[in-house]
Amino acid sequence: MDAPALSTSFRHSLPIQIRFSDVDRFGHVNNNAYFAYYDLGKQEYMRSVLGDDVFEADVVPVVANIHVDFFQPVRYGDAVSVETAVTHLGTKSFTLQQQAVRTDTRQVLCRCTTVMVCVHRDDGQSVPIPESHRQLIRAFEQMG
Amino acid sequence: MDAPALSTSFRHSLPIQIRFSDVDRFGHVNNNAYFAYYDLGKQEYMRSVLGDDVFEADVVPVVANIHVDFFQPVRYGDAVSVETAVTHLGTKSFTLQQQAVRTDTRQVLCRCTTVMVCVHRDDGQSVPIPESHRQLIRAFEQMG
Amino acid sequence: MDAPALSTSFRHSLPIQIRFSDVDRFGHVNNNAYFAYYDLGKQEYMRSVLGDDVFEADVVPVVANIHVDFFQPVRYGDAVSVETAVTHLGTKSFTLQQQAVRTDTRQVLCRCTTVMVCVHRDDGQSVPIPESHRQLIRAFEQMG
Amino acid sequence: MDAPALSTSFRHSLPIQIRFSDVDRFGHVNNNAYFAYYDLGKQEYMRSVLGDDVFEADVVPVVANIHVDFFQPVRYGDAVSVETAVTHLGTKSFTLQQQAVRTDTRQVLCRCTTVMVCVHRDDGQSVPIPESHRQLIRAFEQMG
Repeated sequence: MDAPALSTSFRHSLPIQIRFSDVDRFGHVNNNAYFAYYDLGKQEYMRSVLGDDVFEADVVPVVANIHVDFFQPVRYGDAVSVETAVTHLGTKSFTLQQQAVRTDTRQVLCRCTTVMVCVHRDDGQSVPIPESHRQLIRAFEQMG
Repeated sequence: MDAPALSTSFRHSLPIQIRFSDVDRFGHVNNNAYFAYYDLGKQEYMRSVLGDDVFEADVVPVVANIHVDFFQPVRYGDAVSVETAVTHLGTKSFTLQQQAVRTDTRQVLCRCTTVMVCVHRDDGQSVPIPESHRQLIRAFEQMG
Repeated sequence: MDAPALSTSFRHSLPIQIRFSDVDRFGHVNNNAYFAYYDLGKQEYMRSVLGDDVFEADVVPVVANIHVDFFQPVRYGDAVSVETAVTHLGTKSFTLQQQAVRTDTRQVLCRCTTVMVCVHRDDGQSVPIPESHRQLIRAFEQMG
Repeated sequence: MDAPALSTSFRHSLPIQIRFSDVDRFGHVNNNAYFAYYDLGKQEYMRSVLGDDVFEADVVPVVANIHVDFFQPVRYGDAVSVETAVTHLGTKSFTLQQQAVRTDTRQVLCRCTTVMVCVHRDDGQSVPIPESHRQLIRAFEQMG
């Protein structure tokens, strides 16, 4: 099945190193491996947009929910990249759009929407997105 | 956050063996590990409801999309089970509802909805759910 | 290839829950998955012999080296257990012998020797095995 | 602990993309993750030295045994490469030497020796290393 068109502009792309253990007995990349790829894209996005120290802060983003559509299988040896964008900034939560694409043709293989909530590391209570993060994300994503 | 109430009756439950490598640097089970747990539940459900030979058949179910809500973190050493039910049978696709619960209290930690499509192994084209599978699932789930 | 006979008596055995993602594209359990199985055996051994609080202590055992011999492939659906024994207690280090066996026939599929060193969590320096641990292990293994 | 000096010249090096799920609850790369890194090094070595079609051939190398020494912990965010060399060519088996190093300083973090045996895919019986493979490896490794 082909992926439907999407209005999101992806300004962050990360080539993925596919592991032998990602491939199942049908020669395809296991569905679960995609979640590791999206994690890599997410971590690199945060590191490059929000800075190296984001993972040491008191306020950390945790995943509230995730929705993934699978379009095309991937085989071991295929070159795959993950593209990541923040598409919505709420008060305490934000939405991440990601897609796994063939690196050469940018054919969309799998697409993922993640809602993340900022929580305080000590008590796990939800807190507002830090203003500095908000500004860095808005600047990177060229949000109006 | 607490999980909202659900009308689904779960007739299939599988205790999960949590691995050391499932735990992240915050001492919590990594979100990605849940997908392996849901896979275990799915495989065992199919094996027990549809029979051992289901994975050798010409028609195989593949994941079209998956939606996961995370409610409570799990720590290494917690006893966790995955509950699985088929909640909808379409012509070529069906819907699987799953939840990870604490084995003792049945507190819901994470919940997952998966849409699977039956495809022919040779060409990957979608095909109707085999009638025998349909009957076995309806009987197991006590669908009217 | 068959495993050579071994004089070790294994008093600790743990059934393993094999995951779909453990299986490679040849239908065999991936070599790397064994290491997760041995980890499970090791953790359970320590928990049951040394007590629940062993992982919170100041002195933790870390792996210095590991040697693994692969004898027979395992397929998804096979029932596999990991057997674990401490075969040598040094001053600061000890040796763990483990094997993965078919649960029904106890045919040896893979065997593993691990040397672990006790280190202090704060500075990573090696320290003597705590005397209480030494006694618990000697008692469990019925060492003379 | 520092790694002892080694006479092997490594002509093949592969930078590793470390995954979030490789990191354990102590903030270190889990010992098991190294095996995935060594796998990546091994696959890339074979692909680049023996050619893309090596994994489709009738004769495949399987792991007979593996020995790993752990010297230094790795943290998430560290840049790590795996270096790979064939150090011995027998009749039916060969020995692979590998090490995980910090990409910048080449400090050795972990070292691995793997004995692989060539088997026929159909019956799993050991067979001689194909002469063409032997020549390609000898040329790459500049064996006398």
